[in-house]
Amino acid sequence: MTFPPLQEQLSVLMRGVLEIVPQEELAKKIQKSIDTGIPLRIKLGVDPTAPDVHFGHTVVMRKLRQFQDFGHQVVLIVGDYTAMIGDPSGRNKTRPRLSHEQVMENAKEYQEQFFKIVKREQTEIRYNGDWFSKMPFDKVTELMGSITIAQMLERKDFQTRYAEGQPISLHEFVYPLMQAYDSIVIKSDVELGGTDQKFNVLRGRELQIREGQDPQIGLFMPILLGTDGEQKMSKSLGNYVGVNESPDVMFHKVYNIADSLVQSWSELLTVKNDFSKDILVAKRELALDIVAQYYGTDAAQAAAEREKAIHSGNELPSDTPEIKLAAGSYGVLDLLVSIGAFASKGEARRMIQNSGVKIGGNIVADANAQLTVDKEMIVQVGKRKFYKVFT
Amino acid sequence: MTFPPLQEQLSVLMRGVLEIVPQEELAKKIQKSIDTGIPLRIKLGVDPTAPDVHFGHTVVMRKLRQFQDFGHQVVLIVGDYTAMIGDPSGRNKTRPRLSHEQVMENAKEYQEQFFKIVKREQTEIRYNGDWFSKMPFDKVTELMGSITIAQMLERKDFQTRYAEGQPISLHEFVYPLMQAYDSIVIKSDVELGGTDQKFNVLRGRELQIREGQDPQIGLFMPILLGTDGEQKMSKSLGNYVGVNESPDVMFHKVYNIADSLVQSWSELLTVKNDFSKDILVAKRELALDIVAQYYGTDAAQAAAEREKAIHSGNELPSDTPEIKLAAGSYGVLDLLVSIGAFASKGEARRMIQNSGVKIGGNIVADANAQLTVDKEMIVQVGKRKFYKVFT
Repeated sequence: MTFPPLQEQLSVLMRGVLEIVPQEELAKKIQKSIDTGIPLRIKLGVDPTAPDVHFGHTVVMRKLRQFQDFGHQVVLIVGDYTAMIGDPSGRNKTRPRLSHEQVMENAKEYQEQFFKIVKREQTEIRYNGDWFSKMPFDKVTELMGSITIAQMLERKDFQTRYAEGQPISLHEFVYPLMQAYDSIVIKSDVELGGTDQKFNVLRGRELQIREGQDPQIGLFMPILLGTDGEQKMSKSLGNYVGVNESPDVMFHKVYNIADSLVQSWSELLTVKNDFSKDILVAKRELALDIVAQYYGTDAAQAAAEREKAIHSGNELPSDTPEIKLAAGSYGVLDLLVSIGAFASKGEARRMIQNSGVKIGGNIVADANAQLTVDKEMIVQVGKRKFYKVFT
Repeated sequence: MTFPPLQEQLSVLMRGVLEIVPQEELAKKIQKSIDTGIPLRIKLGVDPTAPDVHFGHTVVMRKLRQFQDFGHQVVLIVGDYTAMIGDPSGRNKTRPRLSHEQVMENAKEYQEQFFKIVKREQTEIRYNGDWFSKMPFDKVTELMGSITIAQMLERKDFQTRYAEGQPISLHEFVYPLMQAYDSIVIKSDVELGGTDQKFNVLRGRELQIREGQDPQIGLFMPILLGTDGEQKMSKSLGNYVGVNESPDVMFHKVYNIADSLVQSWSELLTVKNDFSKDILVAKRELALDIVAQYYGTDAAQAAAEREKAIHSGNELPSDTPEIKLAAGSYGVLDLLVSIGAFASKGEARRMIQNSGVKIGGNIVADANAQLTVDKEMIVQVGKRKFYKVFT
């Protein structure tokens, strides 16, 4: 195989990266693949537990895709065996034990989303049950003999829990070693992950050195903040954009992110560099670029048109909640809380005082007003939140 | 089966015992076996690494035998699998990795000595490789899920090493769980051991409770001090009596133990209670009793006669070292050090000043004397150490 020159690869592959360990070895690895014509093997390990993929997950996937675009090979490791082990102590609720059926179902759903970004034909899929289900006891203890208790307790999360007197089950020390062992099996050159993976990735490196392999490099991506610009993107916080969302919803969510996110989202979710200096224009460009990645340029343009109609008041966002209420008379504060627009009447009152609530197109001036609900009615909070009320 | 009454059993079984955990359950277990006619299962686990059995090991074996004499069943667990695992980190020299062949050879030698004390026909021999070689990875992690890091670090030796910053390999945490798991497999009622085994034995108890079994009791014997009366009996310290020693050597060693040992040795190595109040007579009785256990009364009497001849100066002990020297003239201090009687000339000089060294039957008065060595010569240090020098 022939690969693009080193500098061309590096300029793309380093984009958005938080840390490479060891930094100096990435260029060497790439140069070696150019010299030998052998693609690098880029590892990503996933737990088949949470199949709903959002933009936070795609940061790493996009980096995999960039490696593929230069001709390298992705190896996706599905932790089917790890998921079946789960947490035998029952303490850790984020590690439920899954049946083989559930695991396979989750893995399938995950891959459908994964391959929206990563090229299937340059991906090798491996299930770690292939090797761990056959690993005998003495090999397990040999693996465990590769690390000390003190080293394991240096891992930040273990350190914190140990210091705080929270129980750490002994089997939890095995997961990092399993992940590390995977690197030997698949002869990984580069392992990708968030920075929380650093400890495990470096253990893989050490095991490979013991095994006489050219050790992998850790390439760590930053955590993507959610649409609110404050917390890590997460489904449970509601600040996420899923890769399965419709073009309209995806455009709407991206177009309306916090201003502070424009730079990091551009860097982590696109390869474009020439965004406008005007923040609103930049957001539109960003939303167009991202939606086009998933649905093509035409769909992105169409979504942009509909978003414009919403902002000009001619159309509602396609994800506008519709709430059925019994016909009758309501206090305006009660109404706003009962449709879910506010968590408390106090919040609703403050927004009304700031002229931030419209009902049927008119600004609500009196927080103590009574309203008759007997037909469809649009409630708008701030610029972009809409509720359709009907009876 | 019928068993002797509870009190009769307890009076023997409690003899010399350091601790029973939990104390109150032993009587219940024994009473249950009397009521049901089912013998108790008494577990002892051994590493097949050190096949040379000395009196220190027999303390526990004698207790097993007492259980057998009341009709109970001994289960000897040979840690063949544990020995083959050894110490994969290579840090712990007391845990070498052994081949299956070595393990079996050691186990055979061990059993030859073990069955000098324990009855073969009431002993079930189990190899832990039978279950551990077939244990899959997920079962190993389940076993590990039964304990936390903090609990494991409560074990005294781990605690000390961790506190001192000495490395503890992760696999070392698996050994106690293996031992504990053995108790489930063999449905142990009582596990015997030294007090250093307390942690492991109690883990076995907990695993049995999880498994719904009637949990085992830990019965802990004290550590036997060596012939010097100061340190734990050990081959490497030279203060041991092996069960394979000849009647003469065994008698000689027991007869010459430190005075302070007479009581504990009587309690731990015999069932006799009526030893003489005169310390020398008591030592003779003790040596006669012990040698008779291994070789019969006649052999014990004969050994006692020969020991008497040695002490009256008519005979040398049968284990007297014989040292060949080149004929010639020697400074007396050089001679004493070169035959191994003293570690340094300073020590030799002090002993000479105390009139503690005889050569050819004469007390050496001058530490600076020259000696001609040209024929066989007996060197005596103190009352009981002899060296035969020849050219």
